[in-house]
Amino acid sequence: MFVPSRSSLLETLVDRLADLPSIGRKSAQRLAYHILATPMEDVEALSRVLLEARRGVRPCTECGNHAETELCAVCSNARRDKAVVCVVERPADITAFERLGSYRGVYHVLGGVLSPLDGIGPGEINLANLFSRCDRGVTEIILALGTHAEGEATSSYIVQRLAGRTLRVTRLARGLPAGSDLEFVDEITMQRALEGRVDLRR
Amino acid sequence: MFVPSRSSLLETLVDRLADLPSIGRKSAQRLAYHILATPMEDVEALSRVLLEARRGVRPCTECGNHAETELCAVCSNARRDKAVVCVVERPADITAFERLGSYRGVYHVLGGVLSPLDGIGPGEINLANLFSRCDRGVTEIILALGTHAEGEATSSYIVQRLAGRTLRVTRLARGLPAGSDLEFVDEITMQRALEGRVDLRR
Repeated sequence: MFVPSRSSLLETLVDRLADLPSIGRKSAQRLAYHILATPMEDVEALSRVLLEARRGVRPCTECGNHAETELCAVCSNARRDKAVVCVVERPADITAFERLGSYRGVYHVLGGVLSPLDGIGPGEINLANLFSRCDRGVTEIILALGTHAEGEATSSYIVQRLAGRTLRVTRLARGLPAGSDLEFVDEITMQRALEGRVDLRR
Repeated sequence: MFVPSRSSLLETLVDRLADLPSIGRKSAQRLAYHILATPMEDVEALSRVLLEARRGVRPCTECGNHAETELCAVCSNARRDKAVVCVVERPADITAFERLGSYRGVYHVLGGVLSPLDGIGPGEINLANLFSRCDRGVTEIILALGTHAEGEATSSYIVQRLAGRTLRVTRLARGLPAGSDLEFVDEITMQRALEGRVDLRR
């Protein structure tokens, strides 16, 4: 048979790129060809920035968000309200709130959700820190975990563990997403939207 | 206003990733978060492979394809037929042929197509080498350039320049792509499919 026409360095690059999430074999190939046609200094910059970000970014000691110093940009901001703590699964979830520009509280990143089948119990995620933070002037915990089974179970666990304390514990509203066409809304969302219906005249 | 919650190393990484083709801002962010959660040694490997590929891969001196040595894997393969040369725009186009596993000839990568409006004339692409290759035992040139105006113009130019020579000059067939639903075929493709219709009984 024929010898393959591509160089092995190129193959290795394609393999590595294809390991990244949501990048298929074909996209990886397109990216690799792009990189070979990119000026050397830009490839050097990309290569360097990958390492610098991975080496320089670490968890905030207070909340677990990505940080370059001991505290993340939110925790070290004197204008944020440290009494309101929004509990999220991952640092990426924080950007969804920050985009709003209206949330003034801080965050707590669990780094995962409870999943007994995968061996993830309360000790495996950043829960102990959350409970100890609650002893330091927190007035509200907003649970903002995913609405899948593990997210719900984790929220329930937190609610139970905070049962004796006087702080407010809330969760995000559930219902129809913006722009939804009722015909295509799934049953669980519809059920929750119905259960959570609000009076317009009261 | 609020201080943004993300670290500047992370921002820089997102910016760099978003510069890559077909990676939007949102994908770049998802990739960046993935990279921060990836084991250090894997990020080091990706970073290294980017540089190694960019530094180690260079144009084949014969055809312009990606190569790690003087000749690419196709040109250095004794079993390929050097008398048949398929002319393509970019190295990526070669993989489309190599996937077939049935093409036994070699390639010639122009590295672009003629585009007077963008200042790309015959001297700016790898044409001189193509014509000099034609003096060395080539019996057929297969034009496999894009079917857009610049590709067509480049093909015409090559045909003109080869007018005096005895070699065969062909181009790829045009017509309906596989799996096409006639209702959705564009007019130019349809016109070409009609003009190029073949007799089934002869």
